Amino acid sequence: MFLPKVGAMDMVDIIRTKRDGGLLSTAQIRWVIDAYTHGGVAEEQMAALAMAIVLRGMERREIVDWTGAMIDSGVRMRWPGSVDKHSTGGVGDKITLPLGPLVAAHGVFVPQLSGRGLGHTGGTLDKLEAIAGWRAELSEAEMRAAPGGFVAAATADLAPADRRLYALRDVTGTVDSIPLIASSIMSKKIAEGTDGLVLDVKVGSGAFMKELADARELARTMVELGQDAGVRTCALITDMSTPLGRTVGNALEVREAVEVLAGGGPADVVELTLALAREMLALAGVDADPDAALRDGRAMDAWRAMIRHQGGDPDAPLPRARHTEDVVAERDGWVTGLDALEVGIASWRLGAGRARKEDPVQAGAGVEIHAPQGARVRRGDRLLTLHTDTPERFARAREVLHPHIGDTPPAPRALIEEQIG
Amino acid sequence: MFLPKVGAMDMVDIIRTKRDGGLLSTAQIRWVIDAYTHGGVAEEQMAALAMAIVLRGMERREIVDWTGAMIDSGVRMRWPGSVDKHSTGGVGDKITLPLGPLVAAHGVFVPQLSGRGLGHTGGTLDKLEAIAGWRAELSEAEMRAAPGGFVAAATADLAPADRRLYALRDVTGTVDSIPLIASSIMSKKIAEGTDGLVLDVKVGSGAFMKELADARELARTMVELGQDAGVRTCALITDMSTPLGRTVGNALEVREAVEVLAGGGPADVVELTLALAREMLALAGVDADPDAALRDGRAMDAWRAMIRHQGGDPDAPLPRARHTEDVVAERDGWVTGLDALEVGIASWRLGAGRARKEDPVQAGAGVEIHAPQGARVRRGDRLLTLHTDTPERFARAREVLHPHIGDTPPAPRALIEEQIG
Repeated sequence: MFLPKVGAMDMVDIIRTKRDGGLLSTAQIRWVIDAYTHGGVAEEQMAALAMAIVLRGMERREIVDWTGAMIDSGVRMRWPGSVDKHSTGGVGDKITLPLGPLVAAHGVFVPQLSGRGLGHTGGTLDKLEAIAGWRAELSEAEMRAAPGGFVAAATADLAPADRRLYALRDVTGTVDSIPLIASSIMSKKIAEGTDGLVLDVKVGSGAFMKELADARELARTMVELGQDAGVRTCALITDMSTPLGRTVGNALEVREAVEVLAGGGPADVVELTLALAREMLALAGVDADPDAALRDGRAMDAWRAMIRHQGGDPDAPLPRARHTEDVVAERDGWVTGLDALEVGIASWRLGAGRARKEDPVQAGAGVEIHAPQGARVRRGDRLLTLHTDTPERFARAREVLHPHIGDTPPAPRALIEEQIG
Repeated sequence: MFLPKVGAMDMVDIIRTKRDGGLLSTAQIRWVIDAYTHGGVAEEQMAALAMAIVLRGMERREIVDWTGAMIDSGVRMRWPGSVDKHSTGGVGDKITLPLGPLVAAHGVFVPQLSGRGLGHTGGTLDKLEAIAGWRAELSEAEMRAAPGGFVAAATADLAPADRRLYALRDVTGTVDSIPLIASSIMSKKIAEGTDGLVLDVKVGSGAFMKELADARELARTMVELGQDAGVRTCALITDMSTPLGRTVGNALEVREAVEVLAGGGPADVVELTLALAREMLALAGVDADPDAALRDGRAMDAWRAMIRHQGGDPDAPLPRARHTEDVVAERDGWVTGLDALEVGIASWRLGAGRARKEDPVQAGAGVEIHAPQGARVRRGDRLLTLHTDTPERFARAREVLHPHIGDTPPAPRALIEEQIG
């Protein structure tokens, strides 16, 4: 079929080129993203192109062009001297909560623009909204007046092409593509405009990337995109085969983050918070050991100031779910398989996450972990406590949970697997 | 991401299954087609699935299920004792016009439900509409009262899923897939309900299938689908490397069809008309040589009766374009390359075809071929005459035409390459 050229380019030609394994030119990519943003390319055409990209891939130059075009679809902010961290998403990943104040306590500004959680990985905004009064929507003036940093909802004018494309990919089975994931994350982060960026690329059952080789490729792609755009960027590849810390769910995770800021908290959460803080401080040119700021209260002070600046009351009691149920050990042994994906889905089903963008979340819902991976347990010991306001959800959460108890301790887990960049 | 199940099935799961090279179950395919027909599957989701099918393919059982589900999306007619012919579309392919009356002249009913042309291959309805008064829209009563047969627009209740899917594929670069082409054609033809069906599968530059191996696979797939559904089906694979006959364009092709019905016309058009008529008569169990009916006027009588039944005046002069321009030979030699695709696009650009479904066509526009493939020419001889009502189109038509003249005659062309079924 020979369809007429629509505007400067023919979308069907472009789709066919990628479908047949060809390379898209810079001009084609810029046209596609621009036309998609302004309605000149239909959703079904972009869906077909996205599927062709999932199956045919993109080369580095195409990914750079795609990311640049998405950045140019909106505004670009600037935060001189600042650093940010981005995680590709995991179960129990509340690291942003203690990390931002910890780095801010060293005089480095940490502006964080974030999205909401969808599916089994929670969103940072949902977690912070468990704090009474805290609000995610800030004006730019409020952002710039923040004490040390902020966590705010990304505004609609930041990479709007990505916003639209992400929603489309979500319903068309086109999420799982390293070029599309990398360009989605990096277009938003480059448009955000920090000087430095540390990426926490998760690998394992609870992450997008199940295999180390894929996580490594994603990390390298993103680090290159950042560096090409003038953002000092590095990445840690970290384990997401089992949940991070002892809590999964919004208010439950805030509680744990506050424990870390008070100098306590689970060892893995502390270890990863410190490792990421060290990278961020290094990118900002600050020579300090962040460990001290957790112990002497400076990180907690920064947290309290940042929460207050966004209307939150750091002293208000956190919401608790109205109902709980325990999951107990069925035998003696060691916890050899507390799977991140299973716990993530269970928490989501208990009400901590949303299935659709417009759904509400339950602040108190989630999973409390008494016996993490590697713990020794006796028959009848509590492994998990499930929390929800809607007890009819317990059964649906339980059916996905299959914690495995073995006769010997599991091999110790390396939390930080690799560093890139 | 773990999205909720929508209705009985999750479209994202289904898309992912095909994306990852898996097989779709019968239940999944029936659900997809039903939900798509009734709005439960969005256009962008179907576009992503179609692209996954283009790149991953479908196995025979999936194609049978897909075709069956599209048939069941609408009504199924029945025409006992009848036969039909379907061409996969070519340039100058006016064979339906003499063929229907020729077979009808032997007492075999030929009900033909057809679509309109889009792109460089013309549509039978557009050609017949060049005849004053002729109308494509018939009620079922008018169809059943037809003298020997009819050519009518397919009604909206015949395979409506295919109608919607075809429009979607057209704008999403997902036309080129043997499973999707075969199921699209055969769902309509099986729903039409003839007892026999002869397929004319075109191969060459002006056809969907450029390679013989692809044409053969398409023909085999369609013949199997037809036979499985109880329709006696066979296929001829025929050449479409150069236009069929001496005319391309609506009224121009009607004129040539009438010449054939009068016992004249170009040899290739006569040869293919007779070959297809023999197959149709054989499927209908009629033992006769159709050649005689072209020579003794019976086919012409049937034509006149069929045209009149649909409101047309077989004696009215055919429309002629207001402007013509010649393309002449630039040197002495033999016409070694009169490319079907080039001539098809030129005719389309002159106004004979449409770019969008709602566009009108020019009845008189097209290309007249004075020196077909293999003809001996001298410098300055007319090769082609271009016809249009809108002379500003000449330049755009000429720029695509590159007839090649060589020093030696080209190898003779085998019009009918293979028979299948």
